[in-house]
Amino acid sequence: MEIDVGVIGATGFTGGEIVRLLHFHPKVNLTYVTSRKLMGKYVSSRNPNLRTITNLKYESYSVEKAKEKCDYLFLCVPHTVSQDMVPPMLEAGLKVIDLSADYRLKDKELYKYYYKKEHTSPEFLERSVYGLPEIHRSEIKSADLVAVAGCHAASAIYALFPLIKEDLILLDKIIVDSKTGSSGSGAEVSESSHHPIRANSIRPYKMTNHRHTAEIEQELAIAIRDKNKKNLINVGFSAHAVNILRGILSTCHVFYDKSNKIDEKVLFKCYRSVYKDEPFVRMIKQASGIFRLPDPKIIAGTNYVDIGFELDPHSNRIVVLSTLDNIIKGAVGNAIQCLNIMINIDEKTGLEFPGFFP
Amino acid sequence: MEIDVGVIGATGFTGGEIVRLLHFHPKVNLTYVTSRKLMGKYVSSRNPNLRTITNLKYESYSVEKAKEKCDYLFLCVPHTVSQDMVPPMLEAGLKVIDLSADYRLKDKELYKYYYKKEHTSPEFLERSVYGLPEIHRSEIKSADLVAVAGCHAASAIYALFPLIKEDLILLDKIIVDSKTGSSGSGAEVSESSHHPIRANSIRPYKMTNHRHTAEIEQELAIAIRDKNKKNLINVGFSAHAVNILRGILSTCHVFYDKSNKIDEKVLFKCYRSVYKDEPFVRMIKQASGIFRLPDPKIIAGTNYVDIGFELDPHSNRIVVLSTLDNIIKGAVGNAIQCLNIMINIDEKTGLEFPGFFP
Amino acid sequence: MEIDVGVIGATGFTGGEIVRLLHFHPKVNLTYVTSRKLMGKYVSSRNPNLRTITNLKYESYSVEKAKEKCDYLFLCVPHTVSQDMVPPMLEAGLKVIDLSADYRLKDKELYKYYYKKEHTSPEFLERSVYGLPEIHRSEIKSADLVAVAGCHAASAIYALFPLIKEDLILLDKIIVDSKTGSSGSGAEVSESSHHPIRANSIRPYKMTNHRHTAEIEQELAIAIRDKNKKNLINVGFSAHAVNILRGILSTCHVFYDKSNKIDEKVLFKCYRSVYKDEPFVRMIKQASGIFRLPDPKIIAGTNYVDIGFELDPHSNRIVVLSTLDNIIKGAVGNAIQCLNIMINIDEKTGLEFPGFFP
Amino acid sequence: MEIDVGVIGATGFTGGEIVRLLHFHPKVNLTYVTSRKLMGKYVSSRNPNLRTITNLKYESYSVEKAKEKCDYLFLCVPHTVSQDMVPPMLEAGLKVIDLSADYRLKDKELYKYYYKKEHTSPEFLERSVYGLPEIHRSEIKSADLVAVAGCHAASAIYALFPLIKEDLILLDKIIVDSKTGSSGSGAEVSESSHHPIRANSIRPYKMTNHRHTAEIEQELAIAIRDKNKKNLINVGFSAHAVNILRGILSTCHVFYDKSNKIDEKVLFKCYRSVYKDEPFVRMIKQASGIFRLPDPKIIAGTNYVDIGFELDPHSNRIVVLSTLDNIIKGAVGNAIQCLNIMINIDEKTGLEFPGFFP
Repeated sequence: MEIDVGVIGATGFTGGEIVRLLHFHPKVNLTYVTSRKLMGKYVSSRNPNLRTITNLKYESYSVEKAKEKCDYLFLCVPHTVSQDMVPPMLEAGLKVIDLSADYRLKDKELYKYYYKKEHTSPEFLERSVYGLPEIHRSEIKSADLVAVAGCHAASAIYALFPLIKEDLILLDKIIVDSKTGSSGSGAEVSESSHHPIRANSIRPYKMTNHRHTAEIEQELAIAIRDKNKKNLINVGFSAHAVNILRGILSTCHVFYDKSNKIDEKVLFKCYRSVYKDEPFVRMIKQASGIFRLPDPKIIAGTNYVDIGFELDPHSNRIVVLSTLDNIIKGAVGNAIQCLNIMINIDEKTGLEFPGFFP
Repeated sequence: MEIDVGVIGATGFTGGEIVRLLHFHPKVNLTYVTSRKLMGKYVSSRNPNLRTITNLKYESYSVEKAKEKCDYLFLCVPHTVSQDMVPPMLEAGLKVIDLSADYRLKDKELYKYYYKKEHTSPEFLERSVYGLPEIHRSEIKSADLVAVAGCHAASAIYALFPLIKEDLILLDKIIVDSKTGSSGSGAEVSESSHHPIRANSIRPYKMTNHRHTAEIEQELAIAIRDKNKKNLINVGFSAHAVNILRGILSTCHVFYDKSNKIDEKVLFKCYRSVYKDEPFVRMIKQASGIFRLPDPKIIAGTNYVDIGFELDPHSNRIVVLSTLDNIIKGAVGNAIQCLNIMINIDEKTGLEFPGFFP
Repeated sequence: MEIDVGVIGATGFTGGEIVRLLHFHPKVNLTYVTSRKLMGKYVSSRNPNLRTITNLKYESYSVEKAKEKCDYLFLCVPHTVSQDMVPPMLEAGLKVIDLSADYRLKDKELYKYYYKKEHTSPEFLERSVYGLPEIHRSEIKSADLVAVAGCHAASAIYALFPLIKEDLILLDKIIVDSKTGSSGSGAEVSESSHHPIRANSIRPYKMTNHRHTAEIEQELAIAIRDKNKKNLINVGFSAHAVNILRGILSTCHVFYDKSNKIDEKVLFKCYRSVYKDEPFVRMIKQASGIFRLPDPKIIAGTNYVDIGFELDPHSNRIVVLSTLDNIIKGAVGNAIQCLNIMINIDEKTGLEFPGFFP
Repeated sequence: MEIDVGVIGATGFTGGEIVRLLHFHPKVNLTYVTSRKLMGKYVSSRNPNLRTITNLKYESYSVEKAKEKCDYLFLCVPHTVSQDMVPPMLEAGLKVIDLSADYRLKDKELYKYYYKKEHTSPEFLERSVYGLPEIHRSEIKSADLVAVAGCHAASAIYALFPLIKEDLILLDKIIVDSKTGSSGSGAEVSESSHHPIRANSIRPYKMTNHRHTAEIEQELAIAIRDKNKKNLINVGFSAHAVNILRGILSTCHVFYDKSNKIDEKVLFKCYRSVYKDEPFVRMIKQASGIFRLPDPKIIAGTNYVDIGFELDPHSNRIVVLSTLDNIIKGAVGNAIQCLNIMINIDEKTGLEFPGFFP
């Protein structure tokens, strides 16, 4: 028994990648791929890596066609577009996995602040489940609307959730210094991603007020056990554009109270308690060698998130490194993992490919 | 029924990649991986992409152990080392797929000229089969020693073989201008591959006298039907190091006789006649778009070779482009394709993964 | 005594670079920089490298203002725009150094063929001088319209001119295989130069019918002494986009007649006879080391063109390598060198900066 | 009147760059360049960018020869070698500008801790002046031993010194997240800088315990006016290797007390008060555009340090960005600026070259 799925708005980089992964997914029929711009064209004309591999064509979208052809929809349209498309889909009985930011935040005021727009379907914000399988697995199982985590947000949450759950760090001085590859800027051309401009550059493109800050704080607050502390959390998030193609590395600098007796064993135990059975979270900590700590090079093209840390007694600081592929574990990989949970099959199905070396 | 295979000398880039591919190969047990330098260590300590994926350890090599543990061996040792290791393997009844250059050339004098060394087991040169599945499929089927094609050689041969088979071009003025990524230089550090030296560079590293010239000419001569012309073939091969990581692009400039009526249709027909049923050879020729012609970006990480061409009546020239991943279709991918042929299973098994976009 | 110069259309990459170089030129006052798009803005707002270095602002253009403020104009407008702007400039008594392609070709039919447009001021084609100082120095001295050589064309001409002048090679089978950095695509964004698309790529973007073919053949024909052979010349030019930022490497594959006794000495003598007194042409040929032959890395950011060669008796081939910075020696550097000649000062003035290592 | 200078240990990247800059320095004769490894060879054989530009050869070193040929020495030998060479130089009456770390720290215990070695000439630690012209100008003027600031340290100190001088930030929670290009790893090959390994990577190579931490804290403590607070300073420094070639970007995350009324004006005033007359420190803060904040792309190849900041009231945080070329402003450029001060000429001499765009 296979299920039928569709990808709505598939011309971008995430759209192309999810088509690739679904094509090879053994329990899924990809029956419907839509694009306004490229309607009627072959998916492989846009994604040359799929030449001779798929004969799918982009179709036009209507909720009726979607209903007829699919059980589950992946929504790859831009932020602010999604919120108008989802309600009719749900009404038609479709299950939706939304890759935009529209249903991630529970607080519509925060949405308005960060996305400069009144939300048009706020009544679904509570109903939606934040699409981070490792944290929301049981809710995802029964969800009909999943809002897949943002790429930067995911990398930060993976790094920090266990530390906060075990109450090991100061909540109000959390620094996340993120570095991201150029695929994160999307398929639309722009001066900032023009090769001659971006090459040889490290651009601090969003030092403050990044939209993912809200997601990170929302999800980390879940980990805080002491209700009185929920409001204390405060993340200083900054994002840099570096000249690799794929991958995010988040370097999280957090402080601990010297009076706490924190050592490497405590930290390992903390991370193990949360991630020990997770198929796609790897703790990276070698005593020697070049790849002692996480590096986006190693996870590019995979659904893995690699996490590592170092303790710095000198500055009462823990440095946590977290890296994932922004398009896969930071988007379509998590989306498919959510689907696997929703359709009750092995969560790893279609996602167990390793990265390259070198 | 699965077969047991081993990888001998697995610390280099090809060794790491073949372990990765064999690990996911559904018809093969990888039972034996050897390394002198890293004996006793985990394969994943060298190949961080395989962490949590395989628990294999490097072992020491002996022909007895190999015989006990394997039916087939992939040999990833350097040129000139292979020729001493292969004879005992064959004697022990093992089948060998050699990734070094030692058994590629049929002429021991050419070997001596290009590798500056007397061959120590020239009696096996005739017995070995050149490991290019598309050309030597039937011989590979019954071979016990396969010498996998060199990466540059493979890309040139794929591009030119059909043109020569159909007698469309001048044989004595064939130019192959190759561009290769840095993984081709191997895992051993060197000044020429030091990042600060190689970055921002296009280095003409071997303009004349490249070793692969001999392979290319040997294999192209096979395509010539008129025996009297066999000696005419003459390839001017030049290799550049560019600062991508994976992939070779060979730009072949060949001339045709104006009196021949050559047009695009003739050329298409020519290529189709040779490659139309080949699962891993793709003809690339779009009327528009960025990826009208082959680009290593698209095939990096895959077993595909993409081929395209343009006709230039102005200079009586055909420009043929051929691109492959130097480590996969240029080495371990072809090696596994040969194995699949030898063990009589679907040739595509374990090799049907597409590349990335972007 | 200094002369006053202007740069017309200065928002692109060549515009920015010529402003930078003229700012530091000791014999020149840069008095006028124009841009339609950025009129009124600081040049440094567009060229962040010039912050605190120049306070120049973009102005609007009129021939009257130009006449009032300048003696010499550098024209950095696009092809096909230049041909309408130049005649009024010359009429006003200004001297013009045009960086577009509009006045490079002497034959208006060739212009039409390659630029898909009827030339609007063909009467100036003969009057203009092709801006390659090493070949047209004496004509440049007295010119009032110089058409600076195209970047690809310059690199090919530098490589091949001496060989043709000494009649050492076959004229009808000349291959130029060029590799160029992304700055050559200009400041305008495009999908082909979008970083995620261009990274990790070697794109064969113009294999046949490249516009610079005509320039190359026109200038090389000048070198042919035997009038009867002038029409024989035939260049097969192909251009690849690689993922460096600056620089072109042209690999020229040419054939010689085996009966000619060509050796390295003959070739050295040939090149020395043409270039021995040239301040910006360097012959590169070391016996060993990584940089035995020209590499764009070494000349990026300079006005040097580095030339080297290897002889391949196996294929009766000479491989000539030529590399220059597409924006400097391939555009604004040559333009300033022409200016220096026109105003009768040391040709090297303002251009003697070396490249970087590493 | 020119002064004679020498470069001791000139085969590395800093050695090559200082030779290049001194060659074009109008007030200096470069009379002596030494190398043990390359003695007798041309400097241009090692630095191909200097071909035809300098005929200098590497010589052997002795203090007598140095004394005979030079007034000032630049020392480019490795850490721990310098401390044995400097005392005889000073004794001979030479003035020394040391680019190693040996005389930067005033506290020999800290030296021992970070460099794992007892200092052999600790009596000179007090006598040496830390080579950061903007902070130690007057002491440099009369120094006979200058210890040029480390590259990471310089970028962090430039960013933070003014904030600490004006007492605007918390001293015990200072985060410096640094990203550096591959030239920082030096000319010696290593697996970590092997191109296939480093390409596509962001490697967190030194998250804690980086040697430059001590320099940063030493110099920032100078800025603290309240003596009782001198010991409070605590810097959490982490360094990442990214795949650009040149340049460091330091992202400094610092916290302020909410009760302080800090706004952008206060911050501007703070930086202006320290840097307004500095020729090589640029404050970067544009309202819009891609280069609103510092980017190593823009200062690569120059002696500029670009500084910018953003205020984040959400997290009570100031993010300060600082970028410099690790080899120039982070080493040889500062060294020459120090020399200019010592010989009492315009500090900018020989250093006023801008970067490139693009």
